[in-house]
Amino acid sequence: MSERLPVDLAKAYRLLNHGPTVLVTSAHGSASNVMAAAWSMPLDFSPPKVAVVIDRNTRTRQLVEASGEFALNVPSREMAGATLAVGSASGREIDKFQTHALDTFAGEKIGAPLLEGCLGWLECRVIPEPHIQERYDLFLGEVVAAWADPAVFRNGHWIFEGDSPRSIHYIAGGHFFETGDAFDVKK
Amino acid sequence: MSERLPVDLAKAYRLLNHGPTVLVTSAHGSASNVMAAAWSMPLDFSPPKVAVVIDRNTRTRQLVEASGEFALNVPSREMAGATLAVGSASGREIDKFQTHALDTFAGEKIGAPLLEGCLGWLECRVIPEPHIQERYDLFLGEVVAAWADPAVFRNGHWIFEGDSPRSIHYIAGGHFFETGDAFDVKK
Repeated sequence: MSERLPVDLAKAYRLLNHGPTVLVTSAHGSASNVMAAAWSMPLDFSPPKVAVVIDRNTRTRQLVEASGEFALNVPSREMAGATLAVGSASGREIDKFQTHALDTFAGEKIGAPLLEGCLGWLECRVIPEPHIQERYDLFLGEVVAAWADPAVFRNGHWIFEGDSPRSIHYIAGGHFFETGDAFDVKK
Repeated sequence: MSERLPVDLAKAYRLLNHGPTVLVTSAHGSASNVMAAAWSMPLDFSPPKVAVVIDRNTRTRQLVEASGEFALNVPSREMAGATLAVGSASGREIDKFQTHALDTFAGEKIGAPLLEGCLGWLECRVIPEPHIQERYDLFLGEVVAAWADPAVFRNGHWIFEGDSPRSIHYIAGGHFFETGDAFDVKK
């Protein structure tokens, strides 16, 4: 089971600030789904907001539009295979949780399931902006709860050291980068 | 002088797909400026589009709104100090190019200067969406030209190996991550 502690909402943007690839989970009624998204980013600090691109041809799009909710899950390198897989198959055809043996747990504020094994989680409510949803597949969300694995995110900072799990950054064609070494710059 | 070769526009999204922190350059008339932005992402493949958050209180915002153009420059770790500095000072008060000894070269399609020493460059024209610009400081742009240093981006892929320059990912408080090691996942 993933360990997780709440993240102060004012620090929730830091879960995404370094641009990791995320997994978008969604649910409506008895249906749920998961897809990969390399195109997400923070949009504001407080209240925290995010932006994410959700293609109009996806099952996730239907569930997000129907429920007005989604979660962004930050996967580890160990989940890169599943990340590629759920970004390649459609939830219209298979149950991706079952096919890829992805366990979930319940969020606190929204109905979308959260993924076991991830490093961070952002529960989001859609901020309705129909024009950009329709025209650009661009969804804005307010972060209403956030969580992180205290092994890698503590006191508002990612701690990626040595062999610890790290977040991942997708490019194309199955090609990823790990989040690399930390360094500090003084003003 | 930075070496650079044109990037096929259909592959331009890959310059940003891994979520690096970028430097936003802008110009209008005889004025120009540079700021840092951790909040940018690709928005579409072809024609390539990007999204970037440009705070309403910045000099960059004035120049982008006046010119309808901006460039996203992907800095290397060697430029992390300058990235933090130009993200901390305002172009309303100082000439950040001069203060931080940032050399520039001319783009091909837009008037904003491009930064020497970066690894990739995207020349963008604003796609006017006044509502989200005003409400969320969110700007969309079409990528009209893209360039990369062939030492680190070739045939549509970043090649970060060994001691080669790498892109960077900002968190907060002067704390960055390098782009880490590459790995491939088979479908």
